[in-house]
Amino acid sequence: LFTVKSGNAILEEMYVFSDKGGRNLALRPELTAPVMRCYVEKFQMEPKPLKLYYLGNCYRYDRPQKGRYREFMQAGCELIGTDTAEASAELIGLAYLLLKRIGVENIKLDIGHIGLLRLILRQLCLSDEQITTILPLIDKELFNEIPEVLKEFNLTDDKISQFMEIIQHAKLKTLHSFFQSDPVAVKELKRLEEILSYLQKILKNFSFSLNMGIVRGLDYYSGVVFEIKAPNLGAEKQICGGGEYELISLFGGQPTPTAGFALGFDRIILAMEYEKVSFPILCIDYFIIPVTPNEITAALLMAEHLRSQQKKVGIDLMRRGIGKALKYANAQNAKYTILIGPDELEQNIVTIRDMTTGHQEAVPLDKLIPNLSL
Amino acid sequence: LFTVKSGNAILEEMYVFSDKGGRNLALRPELTAPVMRCYVEKFQMEPKPLKLYYLGNCYRYDRPQKGRYREFMQAGCELIGTDTAEASAELIGLAYLLLKRIGVENIKLDIGHIGLLRLILRQLCLSDEQITTILPLIDKELFNEIPEVLKEFNLTDDKISQFMEIIQHAKLKTLHSFFQSDPVAVKELKRLEEILSYLQKILKNFSFSLNMGIVRGLDYYSGVVFEIKAPNLGAEKQICGGGEYELISLFGGQPTPTAGFALGFDRIILAMEYEKVSFPILCIDYFIIPVTPNEITAALLMAEHLRSQQKKVGIDLMRRGIGKALKYANAQNAKYTILIGPDELEQNIVTIRDMTTGHQEAVPLDKLIPNLSL
Repeated sequence: LFTVKSGNAILEEMYVFSDKGGRNLALRPELTAPVMRCYVEKFQMEPKPLKLYYLGNCYRYDRPQKGRYREFMQAGCELIGTDTAEASAELIGLAYLLLKRIGVENIKLDIGHIGLLRLILRQLCLSDEQITTILPLIDKELFNEIPEVLKEFNLTDDKISQFMEIIQHAKLKTLHSFFQSDPVAVKELKRLEEILSYLQKILKNFSFSLNMGIVRGLDYYSGVVFEIKAPNLGAEKQICGGGEYELISLFGGQPTPTAGFALGFDRIILAMEYEKVSFPILCIDYFIIPVTPNEITAALLMAEHLRSQQKKVGIDLMRRGIGKALKYANAQNAKYTILIGPDELEQNIVTIRDMTTGHQEAVPLDKLIPNLSL
Repeated sequence: LFTVKSGNAILEEMYVFSDKGGRNLALRPELTAPVMRCYVEKFQMEPKPLKLYYLGNCYRYDRPQKGRYREFMQAGCELIGTDTAEASAELIGLAYLLLKRIGVENIKLDIGHIGLLRLILRQLCLSDEQITTILPLIDKELFNEIPEVLKEFNLTDDKISQFMEIIQHAKLKTLHSFFQSDPVAVKELKRLEEILSYLQKILKNFSFSLNMGIVRGLDYYSGVVFEIKAPNLGAEKQICGGGEYELISLFGGQPTPTAGFALGFDRIILAMEYEKVSFPILCIDYFIIPVTPNEITAALLMAEHLRSQQKKVGIDLMRRGIGKALKYANAQNAKYTILIGPDELEQNIVTIRDMTTGHQEAVPLDKLIPNLSL
């Protein structure tokens, strides 16, 4: 599955091994290919467009470093069955807004078009083989090497500097003048502009860079591509990547336009920590303290009743003194503590302590839990 | 980690392999050992008791069959730092109630005590080695083989039939008369009775079988053990197993009493399907249909506004006719469809269709989304 999708080159980066039965296996390096296979096997007849998402652990064979571990979590979305401009705008907007809303404010969105990049290379009269040579260099941003290779391909200095300008500082205007005589390219360019115009209208303070140097993987990316970086993260700053692609026919399904993106879960957590996003604090509603072992049954019963009302409830399970139990309740961020001792049990009351104010009062059991008999 | 916990025997069942670097690795067979290691490395200083839970994929090297796959999901809880009777009652009650509340009504809970079982074997004067021989036979319920082996161990026929009675049909009374002269055993027996009495009081219609034949894994289980089966599932019917154990010292931490259980996620889903539990149906609140491409921007804007109010919103992304779009909205279980065409856009209204009743009415845009200008 993975070499069909990405070629044999991926074997080096993948966690491949032979199992006891001699099968060649790999720990999955990403989840787009499995999702597409799943679509081909199970969901081809679903109404289109079909929206799928995933969250799972993936693996790479590589020396671990900060933000780049051997095991990592990847989340992602795939939109199958449509290639309208609004579909891609929805998808890119989703990735962008999702990151903003979870608190990763400092992000940089680059949008490119791998189809147009290929058209540019073809207009420069490069052969398919030459294009296959040059694309990985663009992907790795080897801007010093690229002109040398293009020179070997017999491009004029003028053409080379025009190309370098496009992949490093593309503007829509430059692209229009480059493509003026190519109706297919002009149509794609207009579609790209349409996507950008939707994004600018629906997203407040939306900002992006046009970046024709985005290559993203191999042949199956065909249209608009994008990457989102969190500059705070330093070297390993890419947190999202995606675009328009076609993989379904490769896995034996009916050719179907698809667009999707993947999110680097672990790096996003690092980016959130960097921006000091406050993660939710676990807390409980009630912590019940039976004062002596005789009140344990009553405490367990109360807990079950409160839990059946969707309350989060803990009980002291250590038979320790009230002081220590209260300290534990505090560490659990309990909102209220319920004390039940022999006197309370006899009078059918409990003592409720507000853990924020320290205020404590006796409450009839009926008021806390109607119809409960201990 | 896994052979330390379970001995070398587990190598046969585990998905073990050598990676490119020649490291001997395994796909994790279960999650208790990783959680305990994590506790030893990171959480030893946390206030006790500490409650941890997990949900993750695990692997076994075995021929796949229904309800028993090479990759499976396991969920579980661990309660670290207390060994009171109420702690174990809370834990067993949690496993039992959780299954009942998600709709697996037909379950059978067996409760045993591996510590008492070992004491029984010692009272029968078996050596540690003999006990190690007999426990796996009890675990596999080889009730024909066990008497033969015990005979080889020179037990009298009387003792053998008494033992077989205990592991097949134990009653608390039989255990009390067996242990009357052993204060350690009597104390443990009383603790077991206390756990059972708590469970009977807090759980409505609670039923269980005392089963002294439950062995569960190896040496680290020391106290009460339990298993929950879903008889509907046939051969692979066990959906939960757990008990009181001590693994922390094995991994280099301070010895700490622990209790926990693991749930077989995939089998529980099968059991839910068997009991015809209705799983939640995905639905959306609004599906927006732009009648012509001119209304796409307005549709995208509306969608973003409604989504920022926590509504689930879809948009037609296919530029198809209203009839086909409505059909798709229906397949998505949309509650309402919002139609916006050239006339609506001009008059600042939208047409809202209730997808249940088919009722359709024109609504001023302001009423649906105050302060939105399209």
